[in-house]
This record gives sequence, structure tokens and C-alpha cells, in this order.
Amino acid sequence: MPKGQTPVTPQDGRTTNQRRHQPVVVLNHGQGKGKSTAAFGLALRGWSQGWSIGVFQFVKSAKWRIGEQQALEALGELHAATGQGGPVEWHKMGSGWSWSRTRGSEEDHAADALEGWREVQRRLAAETHRLYVLDEFTYPITWGWVDGEEVAATLAARPGTQHVVITGRDPHPALLEVADISTEMTKVKHPFDRGQRGQRGIEW
Amino acid sequence: MPKGQTPVTPQDGRTTNQRRHQPVVVLNHGQGKGKSTAAFGLALRGWSQGWSIGVFQFVKSAKWRIGEQQALEALGELHAATGQGGPVEWHKMGSGWSWSRTRGSEEDHAADALEGWREVQRRLAAETHRLYVLDEFTYPITWGWVDGEEVAATLAARPGTQHVVITGRDPHPALLEVADISTEMTKVKHPFDRGQRGQRGIEW
Repeated sequence: MPKGQTPVTPQDGRTTNQRRHQPVVVLNHGQGKGKSTAAFGLALRGWSQGWSIGVFQFVKSAKWRIGEQQALEALGELHAATGQGGPVEWHKMGSGWSWSRTRGSEEDHAADALEGWREVQRRLAAETHRLYVLDEFTYPITWGWVDGEEVAATLAARPGTQHVVITGRDPHPALLEVADISTEMTKVKHPFDRGQRGQRGIEW
Repeated sequence: MPKGQTPVTPQDGRTTNQRRHQPVVVLNHGQGKGKSTAAFGLALRGWSQGWSIGVFQFVKSAKWRIGEQQALEALGELHAATGQGGPVEWHKMGSGWSWSRTRGSEEDHAADALEGWREVQRRLAAETHRLYVLDEFTYPITWGWVDGEEVAATLAARPGTQHVVITGRDPHPALLEVADISTEMTKVKHPFDRGQRGQRGIEW
């Protein structure tokens, strides 16, 4: 097979260029490391394309991804100041979503997660961003807070050219189905196993 | 097991804090996507820690990681201008390494790769960077251009707290041995299989 040739040429009446610029759903799952890290690496690429990046962190955590947030928000500020790259928005569930009026008012994580997903739905409908990172979004689906079938249906029907990256373990089958690029990260070796804890800069 | 407890507490006479700040070798391998992307995501984290980041791309490619390079170099410039984050250096083998005097003079990839590794060795000895990304470094080892045993020995003996991330398929057994964190990325689904080619922003 010549280099750059795909194994199958689809008979869908579209040109290679049309097929090349398809919106994709990327799913990074598995028990290993690198699921979120790879998602934020993808955000780096998108930024330098001038894309609008929206990050949505769906799980409250003592280890927020402070490093990635600082770096991506710095890139967002650079865009605002110089026009380089694209804009970046970073929203997290912890103390209430940034757009919510009821910030930190209660501890109903299920309602918070659903509220986050509803906002993502609104943004997808409005084509607000070019790339969405839904970080650890598999968990609220696994816990029954957000409906996996509904998520898959929304993603499948989203308008325009909006890319969506979802991270987390044990994805709902409907997510695996709707994903265009799905990678399973498998832990081969990790220092946690031999008694070393996580460290700043490497783990978060 | 209480949350945050490691399965084994090493009897090595060191405190948890000493163990926490150990230098690590991270190896992202496997046939799936996200190997390099996760490495550059890690560089994001390191940057916001104020670490000096050194990226070394070991394989000439039509698809240089332009997006990541632009974004990380923008962060490096931000550091130079404002002191935010850390410095970033990006070196690639393509038209000769940036420190080399013989840029693009010949097409001896084997010699270029070895020259790159020698420079990394010098920098490790001098503790030049806090985080090294050796992108696609498994390949010149597989091709016999750089000695895998020597790489592992150099990494095992490196001074100070220098983190090294290596990406690429089919790592030499000595690399797997020396790695502290090893993740295998497995391709579950990719649009290439059904006839869609790569696209800017997602694939590079």
C-alpha cells in the first residue's frame, strides 16, 4: 500500500479534502496514565490552529489539573493580547461551574454534573467552541448522573466542525460507539505500585 | 486500603516527601494515538511549575508537531517576557539540530540521531533541563543508530531531579526496564481504518 493511502477509499461521494476536515470525537480511556494529558496536548494543537478551546472538568478533585489550566489559560491570555492562537475557556465543577449562578451553594454533585453537560449541549448547539475537552466525563455517566445514550446522540447530531475529546475509565458503550478515535491507555508500570506517591508536575 | 495509601511502603529509609520528588523516566509506547500528545501535555504541566523544558524530536517527518511547537514556544516566550512558567527549547533533527554547526549538510539520519543523543547526554550531565521530551526516540534505537543499553545506563545514572519522557512504538527492552512510568497506548478505533486521512489540529 503506497504511503499515505488509506486501506479503504469510502464511496461516499465526498472528496478527500472533505473527508479530511471531519469533526471527530476522541475517547481516551483505560486504566493507564496519559488520558487527560493527551487531551490537553490536543488542546495545544487546537490553540495553535486558532481554535476556540473549551475545557470542562467533570470530577471534583483534590488534584485539579492546575498545571494544564495555568498553561492553557496563559495561552488564552496570549491570544487576547496578541491574536496568536485561539481563545481558551476553562470550567470546573468543583466550586460550581463558572457560568452558574449557584456557585458552591450545595454539594449535589449529580446535579452539578448534569448542569455541566446541559451547558456543553447548549454550546454544541450554538457552535461555541471548535474543540471541547470533557475531562473525566465517563464517570458521571457511569454513576448514572448523566445519560450515556443521550450524550452519544447529542454528539452524533452536533452541527458544524466541532471536535470533542472525552477522557476517563470504563466508558459507556454508547461513547465507544460514537467515538471516531478511541485509544486505551494501559498501565504497564507505575511507581505507585512500589510505594511512590504522585508528585507535582508529573501527576498533576 | 485508605485513600492515598500506596500498596507498599518502601523500607528505604527515606521520607514520603523524598520519595515524592524522585526524578522519573516516563515511556509512552504502543500502537495507539496519544503517545507524543501526552508527552507534550506533561510539558505543559512542567512549564507551569517553572521547569526548564527541552524537546528533542528524533524523527524527520512531513508532519512535524507544528501545533505543539508553536504553543510551547509561545509559553517559552511568555516566560522570557513575564517570568511566568519556565523556559522552553525545541530542537528537531530535520534540517540539522539547532546546536549543530552542520545544519542540513547531509542526509545521514543515523549520524544526526546519534548527535542528538550525545547532546541530550551532555545536557543531562550538566542538568540543563528539568524535563526532557525525547519524541519518537524509540525508533533510532530500534534502527540501531543509538544504543539502547547505553541510553538506559545514561538515564539510570543521571544526576539531580531530571524527568525524561520518551515516546515511540516498540521500545527497546532496556527502556522498558529503566522506565518508572510506562503506558501502552492501544488503538481501539481510528478513522484511518475506514478511509479518513489525518487532519490538521487533530493529527498534528
